[in-house]
Amino acid sequence: MLVVMNHNATEEDINRVASYLVSKGFEARVSHGEVRVVVHAIGVKEVDQRDFELLPGVLEVIRVTTAYKLAARVSQGQDTVIDVNGVKFGDKYCGLIAGPCTIESYEQTDEIADALSKSNVKILRGGAFKPRTSPYAFQGLGEEGLKIIRSVADKYGMGVISEIMEPSQIDMFMDYVDILQIGARNMQNFNLLKELGKINKPVVLKRGLSATYEEWLMSAEYIMSGGNNQVILCERGIRTFEKYTRNTLDLTAIPVIKKLSHLPIIIDPSHATGLRDKVSPMSLAAVAAGCDGLIIEVHSNPDCAICDGAQSLYPEQYDELYQKIKQIAPIVGKVVL
Amino acid sequence: MLVVMNHNATEEDINRVASYLVSKGFEARVSHGEVRVVVHAIGVKEVDQRDFELLPGVLEVIRVTTAYKLAARVSQGQDTVIDVNGVKFGDKYCGLIAGPCTIESYEQTDEIADALSKSNVKILRGGAFKPRTSPYAFQGLGEEGLKIIRSVADKYGMGVISEIMEPSQIDMFMDYVDILQIGARNMQNFNLLKELGKINKPVVLKRGLSATYEEWLMSAEYIMSGGNNQVILCERGIRTFEKYTRNTLDLTAIPVIKKLSHLPIIIDPSHATGLRDKVSPMSLAAVAAGCDGLIIEVHSNPDCAICDGAQSLYPEQYDELYQKIKQIAPIVGKVVL
Amino acid sequence: MLVVMNHNATEEDINRVASYLVSKGFEARVSHGEVRVVVHAIGVKEVDQRDFELLPGVLEVIRVTTAYKLAARVSQGQDTVIDVNGVKFGDKYCGLIAGPCTIESYEQTDEIADALSKSNVKILRGGAFKPRTSPYAFQGLGEEGLKIIRSVADKYGMGVISEIMEPSQIDMFMDYVDILQIGARNMQNFNLLKELGKINKPVVLKRGLSATYEEWLMSAEYIMSGGNNQVILCERGIRTFEKYTRNTLDLTAIPVIKKLSHLPIIIDPSHATGLRDKVSPMSLAAVAAGCDGLIIEVHSNPDCAICDGAQSLYPEQYDELYQKIKQIAPIVGKVVL
Amino acid sequence: MLVVMNHNATEEDINRVASYLVSKGFEARVSHGEVRVVVHAIGVKEVDQRDFELLPGVLEVIRVTTAYKLAARVSQGQDTVIDVNGVKFGDKYCGLIAGPCTIESYEQTDEIADALSKSNVKILRGGAFKPRTSPYAFQGLGEEGLKIIRSVADKYGMGVISEIMEPSQIDMFMDYVDILQIGARNMQNFNLLKELGKINKPVVLKRGLSATYEEWLMSAEYIMSGGNNQVILCERGIRTFEKYTRNTLDLTAIPVIKKLSHLPIIIDPSHATGLRDKVSPMSLAAVAAGCDGLIIEVHSNPDCAICDGAQSLYPEQYDELYQKIKQIAPIVGKVVL
Repeated sequence: MLVVMNHNATEEDINRVASYLVSKGFEARVSHGEVRVVVHAIGVKEVDQRDFELLPGVLEVIRVTTAYKLAARVSQGQDTVIDVNGVKFGDKYCGLIAGPCTIESYEQTDEIADALSKSNVKILRGGAFKPRTSPYAFQGLGEEGLKIIRSVADKYGMGVISEIMEPSQIDMFMDYVDILQIGARNMQNFNLLKELGKINKPVVLKRGLSATYEEWLMSAEYIMSGGNNQVILCERGIRTFEKYTRNTLDLTAIPVIKKLSHLPIIIDPSHATGLRDKVSPMSLAAVAAGCDGLIIEVHSNPDCAICDGAQSLYPEQYDELYQKIKQIAPIVGKVVL
Repeated sequence: MLVVMNHNATEEDINRVASYLVSKGFEARVSHGEVRVVVHAIGVKEVDQRDFELLPGVLEVIRVTTAYKLAARVSQGQDTVIDVNGVKFGDKYCGLIAGPCTIESYEQTDEIADALSKSNVKILRGGAFKPRTSPYAFQGLGEEGLKIIRSVADKYGMGVISEIMEPSQIDMFMDYVDILQIGARNMQNFNLLKELGKINKPVVLKRGLSATYEEWLMSAEYIMSGGNNQVILCERGIRTFEKYTRNTLDLTAIPVIKKLSHLPIIIDPSHATGLRDKVSPMSLAAVAAGCDGLIIEVHSNPDCAICDGAQSLYPEQYDELYQKIKQIAPIVGKVVL
Repeated sequence: MLVVMNHNATEEDINRVASYLVSKGFEARVSHGEVRVVVHAIGVKEVDQRDFELLPGVLEVIRVTTAYKLAARVSQGQDTVIDVNGVKFGDKYCGLIAGPCTIESYEQTDEIADALSKSNVKILRGGAFKPRTSPYAFQGLGEEGLKIIRSVADKYGMGVISEIMEPSQIDMFMDYVDILQIGARNMQNFNLLKELGKINKPVVLKRGLSATYEEWLMSAEYIMSGGNNQVILCERGIRTFEKYTRNTLDLTAIPVIKKLSHLPIIIDPSHATGLRDKVSPMSLAAVAAGCDGLIIEVHSNPDCAICDGAQSLYPEQYDELYQKIKQIAPIVGKVVL
Repeated sequence: MLVVMNHNATEEDINRVASYLVSKGFEARVSHGEVRVVVHAIGVKEVDQRDFELLPGVLEVIRVTTAYKLAARVSQGQDTVIDVNGVKFGDKYCGLIAGPCTIESYEQTDEIADALSKSNVKILRGGAFKPRTSPYAFQGLGEEGLKIIRSVADKYGMGVISEIMEPSQIDMFMDYVDILQIGARNMQNFNLLKELGKINKPVVLKRGLSATYEEWLMSAEYIMSGGNNQVILCERGIRTFEKYTRNTLDLTAIPVIKKLSHLPIIIDPSHATGLRDKVSPMSLAAVAAGCDGLIIEVHSNPDCAICDGAQSLYPEQYDELYQKIKQIAPIVGKVVL
């Protein structure tokens, strides 16, 4: 921590800061610049920097220890690669996930999976518990939905990903899914994060609507600090002033996260844009930017989808997109199944 | 719902929209303006407006039915007033809540409550379960903390408010507290909201970091739709580009929410600003704007507080603030105990 | 400037940073912490901190010299007080400005000024050149408008404030107005700022729609560095996700700016909220928070106003507000005429 | 315009709205829905919708006429293609622009242009007048800089683009440049936009830091309404909560703008990210998303660049990027020179 003094801070002000640091267990080193003095706090204690900001003569206080450790790139020598059903995410691999927003019935799920299996999809997505802004909206089929997606996925040799909403559902999810997904609104549901740190399955952690990269990585740290290192970060759009699209997809997150962390980062262009005709261009853009995977909504009859049909591709559109992804990925050094 | 057509939409486009509306159970009324045609969907069905946005010839789709009903001002003739331990929130009443950020020990809590009792505080705040961004930070005393605050509050004849983090804690909280608080990060933890709809105690619902007024009221609707009408909204600052303060306090929420809803709205200037010297000016501003209450952090020894000491007032500062609040409130027609 | 190294930075990395600093004219002091090394750059040179961020082994680079100097509180011993026509802004004074959004005609301006003179208004506002988002909207009366407001103001013994849009208008404005106003969209029109630094009249500098406090103060610095110290900062709402009000009024700017700078800060509740019924509560809130002045839109016939009638108070509403302002100001130590 | 009434609005309320509409020159059509009444205003008058929001019984008022007309896709049958020096922007063409942030000297400009000419660059960028946040920062070489870039460009058979800051500079720019650039901070400098509407050269209009798509298109409309249809929109990053990169590049703007407008949209990945190692991934992503061009900063000695060296590519990096762009563009149906 660095305490930067005002240019007219007195010796007394500087000494007060130094003494206070010592009282908190730090060593204090005073460094005189041309314009102002900086007091460097040596040591690793937890402390509220604002306590120092309020002292007389202090201009600002700067924290230099990043709060995430296990998620940081420097914590291990190479990129984390997560393998689910032969699909790899991370390092040179770009893994693909597709399926409907919501599990509606066995027939619907089967029809979509059948179509997707022809485009080489090996992991099926589908929601059984839906976080809805309105209490009056459809809330998902619940455990029945998980049974359906598991059964259909098994038929086509696919893995399963679905969203979990609270700790009490973990046992149930362990029975049915291969990847547990944490939704954007739960990115800082710390109790849920802690409990998912204790399981031995991969977790997809969606970025919160207005979360910074650091907050997102701190949430990954919650899971990892419990012992579960299989975290896949998922960018799904952030809230901005623009209302034309549901959210604003932040693709710069790809090169940034890959510099800050060893964890894989995948992109959800469906929730980010909310509009079918924007999904393909943004998927291709994500691949060109070097993402480690995509999770895309596909529905065989989107006009009748219970939820988010407007952002679902038709299976033919998905296949066309898949062909282009396979062309672009190798140009940027990525392998797609 | 209104479907606005492009100025060059064809008859076929208009008919397609109308037929699609009918297929979804609406009556469709076509209205020809000078520049363009608007198709008015008559009926109350749940439908995804984006399905219509994607039809040929459609410019935009506008929803006119507000999604919250029970929370809406028009749903009842007068303001909701919530009374806890004789302190009233809503209508002409401005209720005050004070106490430490976190329950640290019996002695600390007792010392603060003793001081606050001299400033006429009748509801004590204090966290036992703390949502912390870092997994390595202090997470609260847990149930032991709830026991302490209950015991101290009883000694001074005070009510208790504390933050709940997940549904499994509800029974425990019902034993110790008079008001359950939902933190900003849990504003859209829908499972928690639903469960709190089943209890018979007031709930303080903090606004999410980047939530709109409508989303906030929709979360209140979740609680109310379960049968619990005792919801107090709490503005605690929103995220903006400005990093100087922790958040940006949105005081305009006061007159806006009072126009949209009958629910009381209170202000948390401590978390909003994060800095002690900003708390008093913003508290007075909130009262002048007509708020229904304040929740303020006070600590007898903030430099040693485990959490958020920098934003806690000293008891003397709280008393000085209280004296000014009592002068300003009647000017704007408000009653303070 | 401080260059913070990664915890696994090598000696070579550290030396590279130090040498590079020296090549840029700094002295480099290396400080070894428990976790990582910080290189402190001693000296005041202009340098792009990102050049250092890109060096191997560097975690982050921190600038400690604030870029504004003349606007900073530490640059002078006391608050700047600006006096226009006997109305004072700054220190213990809260000055009031009122008038129509736009000058429409002599009769309209005269009628409004006549009414306002009874509420002791001594500075009249009114736009002659209007920045409009649409090229098809009314753009103001131009110089004719300035003539009208000057003539009406003289009749009632008032000062005049009006908005200037480009450097070529300065001579014209010097003939008619007592305060020149820079609109939010021009806060970073650097050529205009530079030219206003050369005049000898007060300038009201509105905050940009998404400007930080530091950017705002840097724009004030542009004016002051040219020799004109009479700058009044004006908060008029920032852009947030909330669309219910035109902008979100940031009243915390009041205590923050007063800590960072000696310049007066006033509030424009009319443009911030955009709705008449929000103007009075937010004006009172601003006064309670300690603002140095208010600029409020008033129109005698707002339903027929050419521009922004919806946010204009009726003269009777202004008078009622004025009476309450006079009651609240002394409670927070402020003097109102 | 549609005036949506509260569900409990009275006949009197509805009649008042209808009469008021008629008094403003509209025809009023009342449509009764199941839940509420909507009054449809037929006609194209300029009116402030908030005047209606303030009437008793009104829930909300909705504007349906988009304010931009000439910039709207429906205004012409095909995409606008702008050709400068044989480089095309728009429709199936993706044009490339490169060069230094700032013109520093003849030698620097010549060295960079020489290198870029080997990568087939036909339009050279370079700033002569620099909008700088600080008055103490380097402000550009001025007209001398324009002379240098023109002379160097002529030597290599290139076109020139440079940023203009105010109307008084137009004549000077017409002598030296082929494309005039409007910076993000000037996107709503309406006087400048109006004057550029009168010239006969292409204008690159950068998106403001927190501008919506509609505001951006409205600024294009300002230029086009003056008679100059050669407008190229340029996305250069928007302000978000994330501070790791300078701005957040919004690539979804590409498919959205291409749906709303016939104007070409290009991307500036250099200012958007502010960091050299993010420029190539985001450039490739932009091409994959279907952009109509790129404007990229390149410097032969970025460590010594006066301005923004950290975001400039080395010429070799540019060439490597160019080779990949040529591979990706045809996959998405785009032609690159």
